[in-house]
Amino acid sequence: MSDSFILQGDILYSESPSCIRAVRDGFLVVEKGICQGVFETLPAAAAHTEVTDYRGRLIIPGMTDLHLHAPQYAFRGMWMDEELLDWLNRHTFPIEARYADAQFAREAYAQFRDAIRRSATTRAVMFATIHRDTTVQLMDLMEETGIISYVGKVNMDRNSPDILREENAAKSLADTVLWLDETEGRYAHTHPILTPRFVPSCSDELMEGLGRLSYERGLPVQSHLSENVGEIAWVKELCPWSAHYGDAYDRYGLLGSGAKSVMAHCVHSSEEELQLMKARGTFIAHCPDSNANIASGIAPVRHYLDEGLHVGLGTDVAGGATLSMFAVMREAVQHSKLRWRLKDDSLRWLTFAEAFYMATVGGGAFFGRVGSFARGYEADILVLDDHVLKTPLMSELTLPERLERVIYLGHSTCILHKYVRGAQLF
Amino acid sequence: MSDSFILQGDILYSESPSCIRAVRDGFLVVEKGICQGVFETLPAAAAHTEVTDYRGRLIIPGMTDLHLHAPQYAFRGMWMDEELLDWLNRHTFPIEARYADAQFAREAYAQFRDAIRRSATTRAVMFATIHRDTTVQLMDLMEETGIISYVGKVNMDRNSPDILREENAAKSLADTVLWLDETEGRYAHTHPILTPRFVPSCSDELMEGLGRLSYERGLPVQSHLSENVGEIAWVKELCPWSAHYGDAYDRYGLLGSGAKSVMAHCVHSSEEELQLMKARGTFIAHCPDSNANIASGIAPVRHYLDEGLHVGLGTDVAGGATLSMFAVMREAVQHSKLRWRLKDDSLRWLTFAEAFYMATVGGGAFFGRVGSFARGYEADILVLDDHVLKTPLMSELTLPERLERVIYLGHSTCILHKYVRGAQLF
Repeated sequence: MSDSFILQGDILYSESPSCIRAVRDGFLVVEKGICQGVFETLPAAAAHTEVTDYRGRLIIPGMTDLHLHAPQYAFRGMWMDEELLDWLNRHTFPIEARYADAQFAREAYAQFRDAIRRSATTRAVMFATIHRDTTVQLMDLMEETGIISYVGKVNMDRNSPDILREENAAKSLADTVLWLDETEGRYAHTHPILTPRFVPSCSDELMEGLGRLSYERGLPVQSHLSENVGEIAWVKELCPWSAHYGDAYDRYGLLGSGAKSVMAHCVHSSEEELQLMKARGTFIAHCPDSNANIASGIAPVRHYLDEGLHVGLGTDVAGGATLSMFAVMREAVQHSKLRWRLKDDSLRWLTFAEAFYMATVGGGAFFGRVGSFARGYEADILVLDDHVLKTPLMSELTLPERLERVIYLGHSTCILHKYVRGAQLF
Repeated sequence: MSDSFILQGDILYSESPSCIRAVRDGFLVVEKGICQGVFETLPAAAAHTEVTDYRGRLIIPGMTDLHLHAPQYAFRGMWMDEELLDWLNRHTFPIEARYADAQFAREAYAQFRDAIRRSATTRAVMFATIHRDTTVQLMDLMEETGIISYVGKVNMDRNSPDILREENAAKSLADTVLWLDETEGRYAHTHPILTPRFVPSCSDELMEGLGRLSYERGLPVQSHLSENVGEIAWVKELCPWSAHYGDAYDRYGLLGSGAKSVMAHCVHSSEEELQLMKARGTFIAHCPDSNANIASGIAPVRHYLDEGLHVGLGTDVAGGATLSMFAVMREAVQHSKLRWRLKDDSLRWLTFAEAFYMATVGGGAFFGRVGSFARGYEADILVLDDHVLKTPLMSELTLPERLERVIYLGHSTCILHKYVRGAQLF
């Protein structure tokens, strides 16, 4: 199939956090996988390009899931009645250790692949485990989906159980280099990302080595930051030299000073930490489902947007229970309202338009010009059937009203077609 | 089909808020629609009763949706970026007014019927609108489902738009009596419930008349209580004689002093109001999805359970976006964690077991002995296929772990079979 085409339908995309452009029966023109814009009438220059008729369907940009743990998909929706550190030690670490087993990993990752393929996600940034071989398995499976992703072999050399700890910093780094060399040039859609699990799991020597590796090879970085108050206190003990948790990454060039960096959560970031992230261009992956499930709190996302920080959304499976970006958008809005009511009514809650912006443009920016249908953006597209959400009001609804309903009620069964960079996945 | 039968499978039900009884490959014995208990081996007395083999499936009690608005199903998942009073005036009231039209109501209520029929709900307490004829339509449709429900023709005679206000208290009461007389003896599963919308919509004269009607005919009552801070301030103005919002119902016998009463929300109830509800045996319908969506807040449910109040769960469609009781259970847990973190860490969060208890036994008690499989309870049963929630860990999971996954991930497609009072609906 050609990567130059036109889709006609009810088209919506974000022009800014507060503004959604909506064109009924509009034309989305794609040339060589790149959006040429959305038009109310077919432009003359595109007269010879084939038009696919999706009138009556919603056409929106694909979503970026900016933070998730692929191995944790196997235990999504369980053991939620605990906080982060207990949850890691009692459940997450023992199960991640099983990804040393290629057979277990193959079955688990194949189920994950099937689910993310059918989801609203067209771009993803994910953790694997410390295991090099099965991380490559995961990358092979992600490549099959056509979704464009960053996948990280995890680094952990301290404060972790024997079954899920690399022997020392040198071996962790050597294994990471082996993994990078082994996968180089192997994929069209799947990229490596350096992945120190979080400060408590990584020695200073390991962090320093990863910073060097990022600098030398221009590799992006993902990790966790200021998720839980107990975790933050622990980092303070482990890194008495750091001004704050974010500084413990920045000291090693892992906060975005070189290649780009995405930090999950930032629920409890200090103003100083935020200003450093702003200076570094760090991406924040806001993960409301996870932050509720493991009782971390509610990040002041309104403040982050006002400050001009890069904010996208993440499912954070399996702190988050679901791969659905629809659910995450809905929860971002809901939890911002609860924060407004319970904690600080000077920060106005998020609208559904803002959640939609973060899920598309906000997170998409980690991948470049992604998440919009404006001219020059890569063509990641979802075609949705919202008529499955029956209502006698359907014919009276505006396009933004229909979009809001999909955000609140939609799930993967609403997704008829998905395109990534102009290629149709289904 | 007989209402005496035995189901074999992986059976779970609440013995108390904190304790779930789980029996793998157990036998649930039902005689004439009443549970005789759950047994590890087939009891001799039941040797001649037919056993249906659901081994490998989860068998749990049906759910009670203790508060929802059937007419609002038509606009679920929309206009969520507003608070209660604006949301009512701008959207809810104009659409409810359209239920004067039998054709509109027929289409909308038929969609609602199809959705609730397929849901986890086996008992429901719901608002219709002020319109007598279409309230009867709704009752006819609910009767078709086999679900046991209370349906209320709404009373509103003040502070409402002309298109959705009854002329005066006398006409509102007369219409209510007509509706009661017209539907008396008409249904096996569908019962009337008196439904003053909330204090702001009902004059003192109307409230007094409804209190008398409840007393004379032994009719239960449903309404809203202490949902939103603006609403509470308004009630204080409207009823300067009342000690608190709850007192404004109680003065007319509408809080459960006579027949039973269920009050939705109670997000901001004072200690005095709670003690009055305790004295009256009032049921609280906790509606976390709605309370987030229209920015009401988070009710301190832990405190209500500790106080021994009757607490069940409600979807509150369409303040809540979904009819899924799975979603409501999940949100009850999530929001209790957010409240613990943001507001008051002396109130420990709710566990999934407690949410399950409220959704089954807690709300079921409004209907009598409902929501458990203990001997003497009416047999409301769901048979669930949780293998659709694929994971390579499935064979290792305990039954409570599988139940937790269904609460976090389940939706109506997981429901294979549903029984109400021993009758199989599908």
